[in-house]
Amino acid sequence: MPKPQRHVLVCTNMRPPGNPKGSCGEKGSEALYARFKDMVRERGLRDTVIVSRTSCLKHCSRGITVAVYPDNAWYGSVRAEDLDEICVSHLEGGRPVERLAMPDIPWE
Amino acid sequence: MPKPQRHVLVCTNMRPPGNPKGSCGEKGSEALYARFKDMVRERGLRDTVIVSRTSCLKHCSRGITVAVYPDNAWYGSVRAEDLDEICVSHLEGGRPVERLAMPDIPWE
Repeated sequence: MPKPQRHVLVCTNMRPPGNPKGSCGEKGSEALYARFKDMVRERGLRDTVIVSRTSCLKHCSRGITVAVYPDNAWYGSVRAEDLDEICVSHLEGGRPVERLAMPDIPWE
Repeated sequence: MPKPQRHVLVCTNMRPPGNPKGSCGEKGSEALYARFKDMVRERGLRDTVIVSRTSCLKHCSRGITVAVYPDNAWYGSVRAEDLDEICVSHLEGGRPVERLAMPDIPWE
């Protein structure tokens, strides 16, 4: 199984405090990433889903930014309490979570 | 443009020296990632392609591992001298580079 059914990217880029862009890292994305990985394992998805931490995903001010491939579905302002819905609706059910969709804004 | 036309993932996971799995990091993936980003900018692809460094992509012994989404195309044993072909053939031409395709092996 060299190709995941779905691949979740969590931006963990950290900018210095006070940077005007802000960053996903300072919003707690390392913990969100760790929780997402645990949840995927707990729900028995580890053989089909990969969760990766990444460098900047270019939506700093709308972070925490999460992308799901191959759907090319992007989520903004993701918080720990959203992860269950993303798992159930999107990763298991194939239905992206519309309320979390990243708005159509330029890359930062 | 919130969704990239293509998104390149470069595994930069580093394991301690002597780890039996090896790692992409110890094979020079940080430099490969930096070169890939530079090349995407030099070729005028920066408005449509994102290059991200990631945590472990689960093909440690076949690294450096690179994945390209939304194609879900996976490459193994990628070296600096392969990047030009990946850019021209895949990112610009839409044709994955078959000679670099990751074999159909289990995740590590």
